[in-house]
Amino acid sequence: MAEFEAKLYYFDGRGLAERIRLMLCITGVKFEEVFFTERSELEKLLKAGDLLFGQLPLLEIDGLKLVQSNAVTRYVASRSNMYSTDPKDQVRIDSLYDGTRDFMTVFMAPIFRMSEEEMKKQAEEAFPKYLPVFEKVLKENGTGYLVGKSVTLADAGLLEVLLAMEDYFDAPLKDYPQLNKFLSKMKSLDGVKVYLKKYRKRKNDEKLKTEVMRVLGKS
Amino acid sequence: MAEFEAKLYYFDGRGLAERIRLMLCITGVKFEEVFFTERSELEKLLKAGDLLFGQLPLLEIDGLKLVQSNAVTRYVASRSNMYSTDPKDQVRIDSLYDGTRDFMTVFMAPIFRMSEEEMKKQAEEAFPKYLPVFEKVLKENGTGYLVGKSVTLADAGLLEVLLAMEDYFDAPLKDYPQLNKFLSKMKSLDGVKVYLKKYRKRKNDEKLKTEVMRVLGKS
Repeated sequence: MAEFEAKLYYFDGRGLAERIRLMLCITGVKFEEVFFTERSELEKLLKAGDLLFGQLPLLEIDGLKLVQSNAVTRYVASRSNMYSTDPKDQVRIDSLYDGTRDFMTVFMAPIFRMSEEEMKKQAEEAFPKYLPVFEKVLKENGTGYLVGKSVTLADAGLLEVLLAMEDYFDAPLKDYPQLNKFLSKMKSLDGVKVYLKKYRKRKNDEKLKTEVMRVLGKS
Repeated sequence: MAEFEAKLYYFDGRGLAERIRLMLCITGVKFEEVFFTERSELEKLLKAGDLLFGQLPLLEIDGLKLVQSNAVTRYVASRSNMYSTDPKDQVRIDSLYDGTRDFMTVFMAPIFRMSEEEMKKQAEEAFPKYLPVFEKVLKENGTGYLVGKSVTLADAGLLEVLLAMEDYFDAPLKDYPQLNKFLSKMKSLDGVKVYLKKYRKRKNDEKLKTEVMRVLGKS
């Protein structure tokens, strides 16, 4: 890993690794990716005992082999001061981040658990539950970010959802001026530019599903 | 809240509040509980804007109104040094805790999303995935706890699962000596004794389901 600081093992798709890719980019970590396409590649890691619960993604960083996507994302955020050190800010970040994870669930589903059309229907039902909350929090905080004066784990979580929304809907934020401003601001960050240009994966499709099922031994 | 340090709002059942009850007891926080049985009680909190995403449980503590059960649990753990301050220990705690949350999902399901029989079938499929992992981690750490030398958020998460297992299965840990020892050790903690005697809620049943559906306006 000479020129890289981290190595991410996953499929060549979004899934649970996308939040890690985004966080690595935002915090400026140079990382390489290993894409699994065959069952044998996963079995090698399983045999080595590198996957605590037998699941991907796996991130190698700081001499650690990390699993569980949200634990990994929080760790990468922490090491770049994106998780605060004040307990009251931390719990605010955690609550908002966990809200973005609940919201994000629907965008993990297409092709794998339902058709794109069914997902879009469920997403539209989730919009009025989540979007006004984040709009209000942004307005009340008044700094352009969800918590405090700089980018945190919570902002990265929200950005992941908003980017997914853009992929499936036309102008989904038209009634949400704060969220619109937030999205533009986040997109102007150097790390997010790198992410969008170089690391963002394509939407879930049948090819990805076939690959994932083969690697997981479910085909 | 004169004699209490915290106030927990939820239903008179386990659900997402049980992890908070357990953590409050382990860390010795004196708390009172408000049980919702009518829709109007929830609407009052919603109107007051106390529920960030419109969901329970809500915990009032340290002048904060906290939501998102895992964020709340992590906060309560933090304020009693059950979450470490070392980033490498924190990510280890997070990974293991998140594993216990995945494992716990199946025990949240009975009556609400499936019958007790269906849940038990799914739980038995999950056992070989999770139990050997925690058995191994306990053995390797060698202190009787999952991470470091004292009780952490991860141990509380594991305890919640093991207690649920005991409710539905006979001697589920007979092939897991480390887990057996862990469970006994955790049960001997003063806070856990208080939890089991005073705060632990009954298993999900039809009465609880009816109540929850009514409060959520889904009946």
